[in-house]
Amino acid sequence: MRVRDMGEEALIAAFAEIYRSRAGVSVGIGDDGAIIESTSALEVISADMATDGIHFNRSWSSATDIGAKIAIANLGDIVAMGGVPKFLIVAISAPGDEEVSYLLDIARGIESVAKDFDVSVVGGDLVAGKTLTIAITALGSVKAPVLRSGAKVGDKIFLTRATGRSLAGLLLLSKGLASSDSPDVRAFQRPEFDPHDLIEFGFEKINALMDVSDGLLSDLPKIAKASRVGIDLTIDEKELSFLESLSEKLAIPPLELFLRSGEEHSFVVVVDSKWQSGTPESWIMLGTVVTGDEITYFGKPLPFQGTSWHW
Amino acid sequence: MRVRDMGEEALIAAFAEIYRSRAGVSVGIGDDGAIIESTSALEVISADMATDGIHFNRSWSSATDIGAKIAIANLGDIVAMGGVPKFLIVAISAPGDEEVSYLLDIARGIESVAKDFDVSVVGGDLVAGKTLTIAITALGSVKAPVLRSGAKVGDKIFLTRATGRSLAGLLLLSKGLASSDSPDVRAFQRPEFDPHDLIEFGFEKINALMDVSDGLLSDLPKIAKASRVGIDLTIDEKELSFLESLSEKLAIPPLELFLRSGEEHSFVVVVDSKWQSGTPESWIMLGTVVTGDEITYFGKPLPFQGTSWHW
Repeated sequence: MRVRDMGEEALIAAFAEIYRSRAGVSVGIGDDGAIIESTSALEVISADMATDGIHFNRSWSSATDIGAKIAIANLGDIVAMGGVPKFLIVAISAPGDEEVSYLLDIARGIESVAKDFDVSVVGGDLVAGKTLTIAITALGSVKAPVLRSGAKVGDKIFLTRATGRSLAGLLLLSKGLASSDSPDVRAFQRPEFDPHDLIEFGFEKINALMDVSDGLLSDLPKIAKASRVGIDLTIDEKELSFLESLSEKLAIPPLELFLRSGEEHSFVVVVDSKWQSGTPESWIMLGTVVTGDEITYFGKPLPFQGTSWHW
Repeated sequence: MRVRDMGEEALIAAFAEIYRSRAGVSVGIGDDGAIIESTSALEVISADMATDGIHFNRSWSSATDIGAKIAIANLGDIVAMGGVPKFLIVAISAPGDEEVSYLLDIARGIESVAKDFDVSVVGGDLVAGKTLTIAITALGSVKAPVLRSGAKVGDKIFLTRATGRSLAGLLLLSKGLASSDSPDVRAFQRPEFDPHDLIEFGFEKINALMDVSDGLLSDLPKIAKASRVGIDLTIDEKELSFLESLSEKLAIPPLELFLRSGEEHSFVVVVDSKWQSGTPESWIMLGTVVTGDEITYFGKPLPFQGTSWHW
């Protein structure tokens, strides 16, 4: 059945069957708004919007992956503020000629991410629109917010998971070098999202934090600017060996894939050097916070210019 | 300057200059998310999305009115749950070929409504998209939620402001019977939004509550269904005399304009009959909650069928 042939009420009821209410939901889907329990004195709120043909391509990603990826971007923003995500609210506009199952698969993708993080989708809006557009707002609890502005000279910078695969996947798809069922494009279709070791490490030990949504090449300057510092990158190229075969296929150096790749939702973690030894082994040492306002590579200008690829 | 020629950073900075942070904002626009103070143990959250060509028509409404109207719809949902709105988060997708000033005017419209209700726009997202789309999520504080499901047989039903002008304005515009600067279309372009007397009356005295977003003809059955009751309408036709000249122009009876008009953001207030004498004089008596599951008019079937016009 197509979306336009199903009444709004029946559609909302079908969505409501997919989204499960977890802790803290007093009134969920079905009234003018949702009633939720406040989970901390401070809260963090963030919104992400994605549109068909710009932020996702229906022939490259399944509806489930499209939904999951936007939810991950949203949860990434909450964690990147030092928060723990609790609730999502999802607004979707759809042309109406798609199958109902397509929209429900988007919801299933969102729910699959919500479930992993004990988050509840509490409501939203579903409207007609010429372009399929998904906007998710996330609300989380936060004890001590971690901003971009807290990096201090001498701090060490870590990355919770190496980036590069998302951009590689996009380029393989867009150049026709891989099909949508190739494992090489999986990280683009649905980024890994693994903030658990970050939350376990402790937000209180982190001076500045950001998730890699636009790519390190775009995101690192945002930390530098907000903190009024420079950043010297000293990445061990051995850390990027996992990118070698992708690099060859694409004729792009591993370092460039690494720095330009966006939609990764890995985290840039800036810590006082005294905490350096306590960081998880899986984290990658990116470099050091320095004086100035430049991003350098072993003290020299970056070997390439421009910004990251991103939404 | 066109949107695509201005960097994202500069655009966000321009938005940040329009939106004023009011009470309870700890970290506003500019980081991965906003940090806000929780204002009550229970909170209410709701989202509204509007898209170009479906929910608004750029030749019928100014950018400022488009922004204001969506913000009003959003705040209406918060109040309709017995809440007091506190924060808004705004996601916009835009094709990029419009003037920057157009998007900023949308923001000014949203801010003008936020200001009237001491609400802060704390962040959002701004992305490229083929269709101009605006999604706003509102968060509010709530002591005792008021649901659609609390209406009891014998309760009296009031409307805080008479509906009809919004639909009349839309029809005048769509039939070419009025230009966009006619006062007759003003209620369509920017609905009055006046929940102050409702808040003053006291949510604790209200058994069921809803805002008229889809039109009474669509919205009253939602209360009836949620509360498992019927509703007998006994509107004094004198209350609709203000619609007479619009009714003549459009050849639609005043009662039909009244019942079909959506996007009004007036409120349907269901109260125990003991509170009837204490309701504000400006409220209109709509009818009585009865047994059954029908919406009737002086005990008989409604004089016309179908649903309301609405987004």
